[in-house]
Amino acid sequence: MKDPSSALGGAAAGVRVSQVVQKYGGSSVATPERIRAVAARVRRSRQRGEGVVVVVSAMGKTTDQLVALAHALNDEPPSREMDQLLATGETVTAPLLAMTLIGMGVDAISLTGPQAGIRASTAHRKARILDIVPERIVDELGRGRVVVVAGFQGVTEALDIATLGRGGSDTTAVALACALRADHCEIYTDVRGVYTADPRLVPEARPIPEISYEEMLEFAAVGAKVMHPRAVEIGEAYETPIWVRSSFDESPGTVICRHPQLEDRQKVRGIAHETDVAKVTLLRVPDRPGVAAAIFGPLADHHISVDVIVQNVGHDGSTDLSFTIAESELRQAAKVVADVAAVVGAEGFDTASDVAKVSIVGTGMLNYPGIAATMFRTLADSGINIKMISTSEIRITCLVSRDQVGDAVRALHRAYQLDEL
Amino acid sequence: MKDPSSALGGAAAGVRVSQVVQKYGGSSVATPERIRAVAARVRRSRQRGEGVVVVVSAMGKTTDQLVALAHALNDEPPSREMDQLLATGETVTAPLLAMTLIGMGVDAISLTGPQAGIRASTAHRKARILDIVPERIVDELGRGRVVVVAGFQGVTEALDIATLGRGGSDTTAVALACALRADHCEIYTDVRGVYTADPRLVPEARPIPEISYEEMLEFAAVGAKVMHPRAVEIGEAYETPIWVRSSFDESPGTVICRHPQLEDRQKVRGIAHETDVAKVTLLRVPDRPGVAAAIFGPLADHHISVDVIVQNVGHDGSTDLSFTIAESELRQAAKVVADVAAVVGAEGFDTASDVAKVSIVGTGMLNYPGIAATMFRTLADSGINIKMISTSEIRITCLVSRDQVGDAVRALHRAYQLDEL
Repeated sequence: MKDPSSALGGAAAGVRVSQVVQKYGGSSVATPERIRAVAARVRRSRQRGEGVVVVVSAMGKTTDQLVALAHALNDEPPSREMDQLLATGETVTAPLLAMTLIGMGVDAISLTGPQAGIRASTAHRKARILDIVPERIVDELGRGRVVVVAGFQGVTEALDIATLGRGGSDTTAVALACALRADHCEIYTDVRGVYTADPRLVPEARPIPEISYEEMLEFAAVGAKVMHPRAVEIGEAYETPIWVRSSFDESPGTVICRHPQLEDRQKVRGIAHETDVAKVTLLRVPDRPGVAAAIFGPLADHHISVDVIVQNVGHDGSTDLSFTIAESELRQAAKVVADVAAVVGAEGFDTASDVAKVSIVGTGMLNYPGIAATMFRTLADSGINIKMISTSEIRITCLVSRDQVGDAVRALHRAYQLDEL
Repeated sequence: MKDPSSALGGAAAGVRVSQVVQKYGGSSVATPERIRAVAARVRRSRQRGEGVVVVVSAMGKTTDQLVALAHALNDEPPSREMDQLLATGETVTAPLLAMTLIGMGVDAISLTGPQAGIRASTAHRKARILDIVPERIVDELGRGRVVVVAGFQGVTEALDIATLGRGGSDTTAVALACALRADHCEIYTDVRGVYTADPRLVPEARPIPEISYEEMLEFAAVGAKVMHPRAVEIGEAYETPIWVRSSFDESPGTVICRHPQLEDRQKVRGIAHETDVAKVTLLRVPDRPGVAAAIFGPLADHHISVDVIVQNVGHDGSTDLSFTIAESELRQAAKVVADVAAVVGAEGFDTASDVAKVSIVGTGMLNYPGIAATMFRTLADSGINIKMISTSEIRITCLVSRDQVGDAVRALHRAYQLDEL
């Protein structure tokens, strides 16, 4: 892992102190008791002499309650008004934490996203951070204050509020860490880091000590929910290390960084799985240019995200073409595919919703054929049939029967010795 | 009453439509059902062709809940952070009403106080409106939109949020009406206007059709709670008529304006009473210059508001000096007065907390001695002893035993025939 101090080279401040951005999710601030626990943790960081910026989410289920209130008044609430409404969730948490810190003798100030200089695009409910103008934050840090920023929100050019969509508070935190050239960003959540597998399936699963940005992105793409890819991408672009830790204990968690220091770079980092999957296969599609575009264009037009795509080698001038989508989108996808199959001259199509994806993730695994072979042999030894295979430089994904997914994940976790530190 | 159209002379817009500002209090927006009812009322105004700006309070008990949350985390929450927190109450209501209107086919947009251009002083929790820059509101009105503004809040020069303290949303509404040169401001509440007396004491009490700004200010000062004096003062300064009406029915309510059109200008407008009162009397105070200052200076230093002050004619070089304060401040006041009594050489002091104020309010009553005589005779005929009398140009206040206040208000309401339209 990169020496954190090397990230400070370009810092503008004359006297440079260590600086961190900490983000606390909704479950970490769900009650006054938990807010006090967060404040105590922030105070410890402050007492170590660190400059601390804290990004907070809405308390517990606040956002869900606001959404329910909105839907009681308008079936399709306009997104600009939803943003004005939803941003209040985070805006409540920030002053509550700031006043708790002040009550503990830690000077602090809360800022909304707009006050913090977070400028966002006008794509309401899924805005992107365009720019951060951190003058106010830098000024308050310079006065020795902890700065508590409401996550998930920014201000548009028209001075409207825009929320950042899924993973928005993580994105706020990592983007702030990058803008402030902080040493690192700490994401506090209700789990102890990024696990080698879902602990609900694998009791022996344990937090991965270090993982690269690329691995984390692949991991998130194939089912790991702990960090949203957007935030990881920003951290990668600015090479800001991201620590994922539990707000409920002192365990070290997972560090997402550029070059994990591992004894074996080719090790499998973890097993991900995803059960919200359906498979669609077009049978005996004529094997000619433009067919794939004719199939996936209409799906994109209907906002259906296609995941793994596999096209088998053709024979007799035709080929089978399979892809996976979220199961929740299968009904709509089937309608689209029925039309498309006729247009491209396929013999027909099949769908299957009793499937799941199991993936292994780790840098450079394709150069070590033994890793892939171990996966296939392990699944075979467990009596699990592989329905599709898809690979990237750092990932191998197999489609299996959904009722075998737990067995598959447990067997692979053992096979790659992920339960051994 | 002034012709509303005359207020429009200086309006900047090319095509001038009738414009109103409507304010809905917390009980009027307490539930989704009530928000829908408010939206229906706004739509009717819009359908009459009026340009409508709506100012909303926080829903129901939201503000109390936020205050409780803050106090769970800090016994003395800093006011700057409290403002960041409390302003969210109104900020939630505004988009909920806007999206309800949009769902009904009425184009609308919500704005926070800062977005609406409401600039406030930095006196957190009791800020004053310094200025309103209504460009955004005018722009949105020009697009035919209903503009829903979160009440009670403004933005300081440092871009912090400041709340306007008690009566803050009324103040927002009246100030906006003045800044926009609206025809009038409508304050919607859970009562049918400004009553001739408290209907809980006097079942025959009825809304006063018209009342002058001065009368309303006196009325509020001596116990009428329906409108905060701040808002009335702003309306008076800009001569903007203020309508106080119920959001639950279509009754006309009360119009606060410059020149009520009454068949009898000297009529008593209503009876106010106040029971949160205590009386303090300094006995045999030496009758020399500087004594009153020596007494009331220390009370002001302790932030104790003194209400009615009466100094009787002196005899033997000394005088009795009485004043009233809020009963809740009696304990602290008694400590201050004990010190002060010794310093000024008073013989001692008395306190009484079993008292209440009863007042009659009406323009120019001091020129009609019969009005005062009727008050004193009515109380005497009811067996009610008068403990203190204080008068202004448009008000007469008597201090009576608290257990007789209901009888006093009812007898006066009858004596001045306020139950007759």
